[in-house]
Amino acid sequence: MARMSLFRGLVAGCVFAVWGVAAHAETHSFEMTIEDAEITLVGSQTFHTFAFDGQVPGPLLHVKEGDDLEVHVTNFTTLPHTVHWHGMFQKDTWQSDGVPDTTQKAIAPGETYTYRFKASPAGTMWYHCHVNVNEHVSMRGMWGPFVVDPAVESDLEKSVTKDFILMFSSWASAWAHKPGEGGVPGDTFDYFTINGKSFPETQPMRVREGDVVRMRLLGVGDSLHSIHLHGHTFDVVRKDGHLLPQPYKADTLLLGPGERYDIIFEANNPGRWMVHDHIDMHTVNGNKPHGGIMSVVEYEEVGIDDDFYIWKDKEFQEDFYYENALTKPHGLHHAETFRGEPVE
Amino acid sequence: MARMSLFRGLVAGCVFAVWGVAAHAETHSFEMTIEDAEITLVGSQTFHTFAFDGQVPGPLLHVKEGDDLEVHVTNFTTLPHTVHWHGMFQKDTWQSDGVPDTTQKAIAPGETYTYRFKASPAGTMWYHCHVNVNEHVSMRGMWGPFVVDPAVESDLEKSVTKDFILMFSSWASAWAHKPGEGGVPGDTFDYFTINGKSFPETQPMRVREGDVVRMRLLGVGDSLHSIHLHGHTFDVVRKDGHLLPQPYKADTLLLGPGERYDIIFEANNPGRWMVHDHIDMHTVNGNKPHGGIMSVVEYEEVGIDDDFYIWKDKEFQEDFYYENALTKPHGLHHAETFRGEPVE
Amino acid sequence: MARMSLFRGLVAGCVFAVWGVAAHAETHSFEMTIEDAEITLVGSQTFHTFAFDGQVPGPLLHVKEGDDLEVHVTNFTTLPHTVHWHGMFQKDTWQSDGVPDTTQKAIAPGETYTYRFKASPAGTMWYHCHVNVNEHVSMRGMWGPFVVDPAVESDLEKSVTKDFILMFSSWASAWAHKPGEGGVPGDTFDYFTINGKSFPETQPMRVREGDVVRMRLLGVGDSLHSIHLHGHTFDVVRKDGHLLPQPYKADTLLLGPGERYDIIFEANNPGRWMVHDHIDMHTVNGNKPHGGIMSVVEYEEVGIDDDFYIWKDKEFQEDFYYENALTKPHGLHHAETFRGEPVE
Repeated sequence: MARMSLFRGLVAGCVFAVWGVAAHAETHSFEMTIEDAEITLVGSQTFHTFAFDGQVPGPLLHVKEGDDLEVHVTNFTTLPHTVHWHGMFQKDTWQSDGVPDTTQKAIAPGETYTYRFKASPAGTMWYHCHVNVNEHVSMRGMWGPFVVDPAVESDLEKSVTKDFILMFSSWASAWAHKPGEGGVPGDTFDYFTINGKSFPETQPMRVREGDVVRMRLLGVGDSLHSIHLHGHTFDVVRKDGHLLPQPYKADTLLLGPGERYDIIFEANNPGRWMVHDHIDMHTVNGNKPHGGIMSVVEYEEVGIDDDFYIWKDKEFQEDFYYENALTKPHGLHHAETFRGEPVE
Repeated sequence: MARMSLFRGLVAGCVFAVWGVAAHAETHSFEMTIEDAEITLVGSQTFHTFAFDGQVPGPLLHVKEGDDLEVHVTNFTTLPHTVHWHGMFQKDTWQSDGVPDTTQKAIAPGETYTYRFKASPAGTMWYHCHVNVNEHVSMRGMWGPFVVDPAVESDLEKSVTKDFILMFSSWASAWAHKPGEGGVPGDTFDYFTINGKSFPETQPMRVREGDVVRMRLLGVGDSLHSIHLHGHTFDVVRKDGHLLPQPYKADTLLLGPGERYDIIFEANNPGRWMVHDHIDMHTVNGNKPHGGIMSVVEYEEVGIDDDFYIWKDKEFQEDFYYENALTKPHGLHHAETFRGEPVE
Repeated sequence: MARMSLFRGLVAGCVFAVWGVAAHAETHSFEMTIEDAEITLVGSQTFHTFAFDGQVPGPLLHVKEGDDLEVHVTNFTTLPHTVHWHGMFQKDTWQSDGVPDTTQKAIAPGETYTYRFKASPAGTMWYHCHVNVNEHVSMRGMWGPFVVDPAVESDLEKSVTKDFILMFSSWASAWAHKPGEGGVPGDTFDYFTINGKSFPETQPMRVREGDVVRMRLLGVGDSLHSIHLHGHTFDVVRKDGHLLPQPYKADTLLLGPGERYDIIFEANNPGRWMVHDHIDMHTVNGNKPHGGIMSVVEYEEVGIDDDFYIWKDKEFQEDFYYENALTKPHGLHHAETFRGEPVE
């Protein structure tokens, strides 16, 4: 595994300007791997994944509209894979669309394939494998966030002070340690995660009064999710990366696999507010309630000291929602918290 | 049980004005109980519920925007519960948001908890338990309608002459008489209800030509519903209580758990028109078809006399859709038709 | 079966103008049958259906807004059926709405029922049986496309050069050859189709640069579908046949049973682009991946010659998406490709 870490270390953050393409367009060159890795959803429930750069979700790919990307993907697993850059036009580069047997041959174990394309259109996108999606995407964690900053933002977007990414997925524990199998009709999904973790091992989203908060909601697994935010009404601003002609207000949003919504709300109501899936079955771990897709928006103003608060002693982990990574310079940003254990 | 009935009787309708708060804001003080109660979904299919004031759905809570509410909730069951007032901002009252271990300790058996909050924002809301939602909300009937009249209505809303509330849910009969269990991955939902009843034990919605009809659709259980109205196009007017920037037209509407839609249509087409879930499986009772989530909009002009009409001899029960309760003065309105049998 | 073919032959295309009704309104008179027919979803997976005119999907019913329709439906199966014309107002003709025991007695085996109604409103509609919908609609293929051309189209609609109909459904193979049974809670849907066929036995959608492409997406079975188009952003133009106040952009669209969406995109990006359900489980055949609801938009400019292309030797079948039928004069248009084998 040292080999792969080295591999990643050597190439991280390779960014350089390209003259003559567009005023401010940059060219980014990245290396990514696909690795067998065991992650822990919650408690003792581990899962064998095929992990981008060894982590689930994969690293944040963050660029701006019009940038040129070159991504060399090396498959260190024993099964074929591809990468589909969900939402990208792939104008003049359809061979980089990542569909096996349609736009390319799948990347065989040990091989590298290079994807080259322009980051367009802008918005909240994602990348994922396109081989046997019923297993690889649904249950092997083969997805990561891909944010393309728009050349033009709405005024509401310009006002955002806190930015969170939430990727929702579901897992059938029967297949946890049977890579290459599963994701078939009759499966029982019994674990449900935000960014690969189930409550109470998810993290709070910390805000303070006056913040303008964006949540980027992504349906990346095989289940639907009906996401409810307590104590606030949010504006639904973008669908699949694209500005809606007019935002609309809601407190609960139904999200299908592959869909993305950007929602924005003003943090004007100090308190401790649940964010959770209102598909009630998605708030269990196995068959034990108060788990799955649940988190809390914590206002700094109210603190976490109440005796009754389940997270009063919680060890807070920054960047669980990529909130720090999103503020860094454009690039491919890894997170130790999402890294799995290598599987030989 | 006499004790609880008396309890409810003593405190019903306690409404009084409060000076100095806002021009017309009222303060309402209510008592609610949570009781073990057995309801009948259809035929001989009974279900053990934890029922607000002994009924499923719970009583209609109907106030106007800006009113101040005080609700004393007493738990007469043997399990802990809370009440979450879904959609409320709970501005300055986050401890009344009803989330166990986050905003309060759950209400232990025999105890009372008082929720105090301002009714804001306006719209079609609901209340429900927030303990073990996978069982309590999904399958123990712990939900009721909560309508907050807006200070300002749209012109279309002002024209409404008939107002119906439809709460959709689903039930796994395997757990019918195992309170404290169920609502776990692998469950088979096999009963489907509007306001706690399956066809043919639902009720028609009676209208006449010229009516302007609002249906308030609420997804309160754990399934999705794709609600289709025959013979009319409806305007989708509000989502989760909030006016859409522009209404849009549809004849079928997909509804996720926790979501609410207000739809309005002009009753301009005398006939007998189905309203049903287009998820076909939701129109069975157990494994017998022509059941579940089905009802009929009956125009007075066409009557019910046709020999082939399944409901020609139906005993009509008013207020099954809270249509009368909604016209009463603001308050907490009970309905005998929804009351279950006490369970010792 | 010769009898039925003759029957269909005699009455096909009976169209005549009616004076004094409306300037250009036509009256169409059609005969339709309901027949036991075995279709092949993919490979060796056959399914017993009750097929309109012996085909699944049924024939395209294509008229214009305001036309008067008369459809004589004869039931050649051994079970009762009806036809519901989903989305039609049935103004003054509620007895033609096709709901058993509500608007009519079901059509008994061997009998004929005549539906008479005006084609209104316009849009992408469909027709389907309304008896035991959990089996007949969900799994016996009792549905067909019904397009009512609007009197007034939007500018974007006027620019359409290619028009495709995609009807999505799911099947539980356990019931494949048990007509009159199935469609009950606990079923496992394990086959997933576009217009009755699973990948790789679906067909490509062929376009060329400059085309303006409309896809009419219809949820006709019992599952939800999250339809994703690669390489393009589409405008969501109509919902359930009705123009949205403003189109919105997306790359993935969640579709509930009974819902229809018209989406339009400019074919400005030569390539080979997947269209598929992003509910990953819906891309298997039985438990084998790379099947189900998948197809490819093929641009003429890129051809199909790549060695890695799974459909490089595909025998192309025109009109699989009714793209030719939609260009023919108004009427009832059959397609040999959808015809099943008679079942005695």
